[in-house]
Amino acid sequence: MDSYLIQVNGHDDHGDHAMLDVHLKTNGNTIPLGKAKGRKPRWAVRASEMSKKTFNPVRAIVDSMKVEPNPKKAMISLSLGDPTVFGNLPTNNEVTRAVKEVLDSGRCNGYAPSVGYQSCREAVAAFYTCPEAPLEAQDVILTSGCSQAIELALAVLANPGQNILVPRPGFSLYKTLALSMGIEVKLYNLLPEKAWEIDLKQLESLVDEKTACLIVNNPSNPCGSVFSKRHLQKILAVASRQCVPILADEIYGDMIRDGLVRLSQRILGPCTLVQGALERILHRTPSEFYHNTLSILKSNADLCYAALSAIPGLRPVRPAGAMYLMVEIEMEHFPEFENDVEFTERLISEQSVFCLPATCFEYPNFFRVVITVPEEMILEACSRIQEFCEMHYQGAEGAQDLECDK
Amino acid sequence: MDSYLIQVNGHDDHGDHAMLDVHLKTNGNTIPLGKAKGRKPRWAVRASEMSKKTFNPVRAIVDSMKVEPNPKKAMISLSLGDPTVFGNLPTNNEVTRAVKEVLDSGRCNGYAPSVGYQSCREAVAAFYTCPEAPLEAQDVILTSGCSQAIELALAVLANPGQNILVPRPGFSLYKTLALSMGIEVKLYNLLPEKAWEIDLKQLESLVDEKTACLIVNNPSNPCGSVFSKRHLQKILAVASRQCVPILADEIYGDMIRDGLVRLSQRILGPCTLVQGALERILHRTPSEFYHNTLSILKSNADLCYAALSAIPGLRPVRPAGAMYLMVEIEMEHFPEFENDVEFTERLISEQSVFCLPATCFEYPNFFRVVITVPEEMILEACSRIQEFCEMHYQGAEGAQDLECDK
Repeated sequence: MDSYLIQVNGHDDHGDHAMLDVHLKTNGNTIPLGKAKGRKPRWAVRASEMSKKTFNPVRAIVDSMKVEPNPKKAMISLSLGDPTVFGNLPTNNEVTRAVKEVLDSGRCNGYAPSVGYQSCREAVAAFYTCPEAPLEAQDVILTSGCSQAIELALAVLANPGQNILVPRPGFSLYKTLALSMGIEVKLYNLLPEKAWEIDLKQLESLVDEKTACLIVNNPSNPCGSVFSKRHLQKILAVASRQCVPILADEIYGDMIRDGLVRLSQRILGPCTLVQGALERILHRTPSEFYHNTLSILKSNADLCYAALSAIPGLRPVRPAGAMYLMVEIEMEHFPEFENDVEFTERLISEQSVFCLPATCFEYPNFFRVVITVPEEMILEACSRIQEFCEMHYQGAEGAQDLECDK
Repeated sequence: MDSYLIQVNGHDDHGDHAMLDVHLKTNGNTIPLGKAKGRKPRWAVRASEMSKKTFNPVRAIVDSMKVEPNPKKAMISLSLGDPTVFGNLPTNNEVTRAVKEVLDSGRCNGYAPSVGYQSCREAVAAFYTCPEAPLEAQDVILTSGCSQAIELALAVLANPGQNILVPRPGFSLYKTLALSMGIEVKLYNLLPEKAWEIDLKQLESLVDEKTACLIVNNPSNPCGSVFSKRHLQKILAVASRQCVPILADEIYGDMIRDGLVRLSQRILGPCTLVQGALERILHRTPSEFYHNTLSILKSNADLCYAALSAIPGLRPVRPAGAMYLMVEIEMEHFPEFENDVEFTERLISEQSVFCLPATCFEYPNFFRVVITVPEEMILEACSRIQEFCEMHYQGAEGAQDLECDK
């Protein structure tokens, strides 16, 4: 399995192995442009248009935030929505045991169907089915994470040149994927003063004959909001009136099944170890595990909301689901900072607390707080945010003074 | 986590849970066509062009082979290239232990970077690097299986409207992926009489100004062939002269790194459990495991080649790598059968032996045999194939007679 690389633009280096992997390495500095018919061929290898259109705003914003934390304070990151980082929300043992059993059996080390094992699809269907909405195995397509599920759902619904309706603030991957596929993104507004309900009138005004689908993300990342039944019915009324299918985050209707099966064949399906363990995971994980996790999240959310509410210049929006909380920055009281990116940068360099600026979610002047970190860490982070805000807060007069100095 | 489904084209069914997943189900029978501006909106939800262009020839051919095996003979499948099916090539215990350790540690249950864990990329680079071709962690992008690696490599190199050069016979996924992305496929020939070397003249004649890359699959699926160093140099000379980058199955050069990193962000990376275990797997799996596996494959290949060589009407091509062997059917001696698909169908219904017709690989009148099955199963399969051929073989005269009967 030795690797073998040949430099075509100079001398060749050769290995001496019977079985070779061949790379082609060109010197990136000397690739000339243009390759025309009839002329001597020239090197012109460029990244595809699709790859150039693939743009992850969170990475772009976060990677450009080149700030060092305050060395006197231990870093607290409230930026990444990953509940496993601190060990305070461990996986249930039953889950670990189920995967281990599959490993020992050796029965899930090969190729699974691209849509997932039949037994696993059956287990998922049986777990989620209900009398009002019967689900069968063929309604279930397993994917490599939710990000691939969103990719497949978008790819089956929309053609290049069509558009999709995406929430603002909203999860950035919708836009990343859509733009890379040549699909236009139209942003509909969530209203913080209405617990992040959708501005339905504005939503409906965005629909045109090229609208392929409406993405409803509920509970919301980054808002942590949950729609009422009444609000959901109103959303459905808009979709029904405008004949626009809803893509409900990672869950989609069965009308598009054949297309999804074909698309799933583009890669050979998700992790077989987890697939093999899934039936047992679904059945044997004790309900206390879920209750316990939810109660920790609820307690952390309440704690965090209460602490941030008391800070001058900040306006947190109370969350009802997911693992997030959005906080508005009253920018007029922080005239030192241009925007949420600068605010969160300085929060890192002065207080070693990292929150994601909501510009990442197309929603400036807010930041997002992750509530899965341990309680004592939330309290410490909130107290540092308070110190930071008190340091930089300008009352109405102070702000005016500073305005006059300019 | 209850599921919630609303039928918009009739009455609504409502659940009564605080947190809901929303599906939209339309009655597929009553979706009218067309949605025009200014007119009343109508339902017109169709699978995307991309999903319609996603076509897996192996599935299409195999799924249309509706034959029952001979109930008197136990089924032997030589069709699927999955070495784990029969338990004769078990995973090494060290691999299982490494994954279990990661499971117990709980440290790989969260989100990894979309290109893979840094430590895992370093381990892969350290494993494959060599003085002539130094590899660093940033040269490595981990994917969800090799199929996603091929998808990423094609997506970063080629734009819609360009073309790629693909071996015939060859792995069908190249074409499946390319066509779904609007990339044209040009087939270059492998020559069975030259141990499946490339027809270099014909290959070079296919290159035009729209050629984005040349796929070299070595060792070959389905041929099991391995190119000599001399032949590889000739391939490189063509690529160099024509300035066409080589995509060497799942391994690619570093010239396209940025594009690949961006594309990898479309999904959140491959199975973290395996990533977490990979360093240990690479270092601790004893070399006897690989030697042993290779010697079983070699022995099976020799056995199978010898047995099939003795059968009238068949011409196996000796393999040198991979897990496959291609067998030519002298169709003129089997006038009963229209083509390789019919030949392999009847082989199932009469002898309960399933080999993949090479039409799946754009190479009619051959079939592919998988050599990872246990030795006694190969021998039994070969003896049944012999019985089948002897039953249906027509010498030159017999074939003529049958011709005259028409």
